[in-house]
Amino acid sequence: MTSAVIPRTGIGVDVHAHSQDPERELWVAGLQWPGERGLEGHSDSDVAAHACCDALFSAAGIGDLGQHFGVDRPEFAGASGMRLLAEAARRVRAAGYEIGNVSVQVIGNRPKIGTRRSEAQRTLTAAVGAGVSVSGTTSDGLGLTGRGEGVAAIANALVYPVRAEGVSWSE
Amino acid sequence: MTSAVIPRTGIGVDVHAHSQDPERELWVAGLQWPGERGLEGHSDSDVAAHACCDALFSAAGIGDLGQHFGVDRPEFAGASGMRLLAEAARRVRAAGYEIGNVSVQVIGNRPKIGTRRSEAQRTLTAAVGAGVSVSGTTSDGLGLTGRGEGVAAIANALVYPVRAEGVSWSE
Amino acid sequence: MTSAVIPRTGIGVDVHAHSQDPERELWVAGLQWPGERGLEGHSDSDVAAHACCDALFSAAGIGDLGQHFGVDRPEFAGASGMRLLAEAARRVRAAGYEIGNVSVQVIGNRPKIGTRRSEAQRTLTAAVGAGVSVSGTTSDGLGLTGRGEGVAAIANALVYPVRAEGVSWSE
Repeated sequence: MTSAVIPRTGIGVDVHAHSQDPERELWVAGLQWPGERGLEGHSDSDVAAHACCDALFSAAGIGDLGQHFGVDRPEFAGASGMRLLAEAARRVRAAGYEIGNVSVQVIGNRPKIGTRRSEAQRTLTAAVGAGVSVSGTTSDGLGLTGRGEGVAAIANALVYPVRAEGVSWSE
Repeated sequence: MTSAVIPRTGIGVDVHAHSQDPERELWVAGLQWPGERGLEGHSDSDVAAHACCDALFSAAGIGDLGQHFGVDRPEFAGASGMRLLAEAARRVRAAGYEIGNVSVQVIGNRPKIGTRRSEAQRTLTAAVGAGVSVSGTTSDGLGLTGRGEGVAAIANALVYPVRAEGVSWSE
Repeated sequence: MTSAVIPRTGIGVDVHAHSQDPERELWVAGLQWPGERGLEGHSDSDVAAHACCDALFSAAGIGDLGQHFGVDRPEFAGASGMRLLAEAARRVRAAGYEIGNVSVQVIGNRPKIGTRRSEAQRTLTAAVGAGVSVSGTTSDGLGLTGRGEGVAAIANALVYPVRAEGVSWSE
């Protein structure tokens, strides 16, 4: 007999301001976007990866990005979004959960996610070890993203407790 | 024996600016709101419907609103939010998923969703063919919605892979 | 034989402006934050609690905060976020649902959620009677939260229909 497997949900938002440094590279959704204005921050400031990390941590109930990779964790200073995301997924599994899927939407005028969606999805999916859907939208010229001050991302994740009896929930 | 059915989550945000055209109708959550200022856009600019589309597409991992109904898809130019939402639901099912439910919240000073919640829910539920919950809030006078520059919506959807063996997951 | 249990998702966002009254206390995530600037409102303006209420109501498809606790419900005038959240959870269960978990993220410059995360999680979890994950982030100096005009929160909840036959879905 199989008993039901109850997922847990987690949500995460992240925002990074555009850099004034014309040499700064833009990294969003695990990809470098040539010719686009970069985002401020000590790391690569990948808002999509950071939002996914927070969604995963919250789904597993094990804190947030600041707690795991904050300034008092020098071993992650300047780490790429992909490295943080892979490590977040590892910690979620170490806490006893399997990852169902993650959905992340990038909100901003640039970059145009749709032009490289498959590549972004492959990259984030590889880091998480579970399906990551990537979408993009604008805020119609309004707010911090519409004024081009920065880029936002919102992510939602589902995780599942791994049972001792090993329910074959994964398809 | 029944094996567990694993849902997939999807999230979507949409924002539309208010129109300067006093003749422009306001359409939100599948309803026309008489006497309210309309939203800009080539379509009816129904932010709630658009956010639901993006949440559904992302849950199924099949792209986003721009990819499915963007400017290079002339057959959907000017299509109503309800037509897009019904077509999005059809495409999600065609991709092999059944839809669990959708939750959407409209964020803005106007319209007052609570005054017509049941009607909005019936309309969106009919378009999706699964339950859609509709709620409303303000941003307390702050930000793009608080200043009355536009209306935002945020949606979350759960979908389920349809199994060949036909698990009776739907209640 | 156990049939699958299908969760329903709900999402909710809330924003409150900072008060100009230096005596006004700050209440966020069920905690009073000494020395921090308060938020405007007739109640304690606990954005995290309010976002959780809206996520729960929407997951159960039973309306929103305004409908349940709005100005035409004088018995809840000035009620604390924790009282509203406990009552929201009670109403969700009365509507036939059990609560899986809730994830809420506080977005703002202050307070620093990470300094009191465990306490916040215990407090919200006690009010809901199911796990509540609490996280915090900033918007990198941008937007209404980055300018210090207010604090926002975003919450996501999963609920489950309670079956007559009493499926033992809870772990």
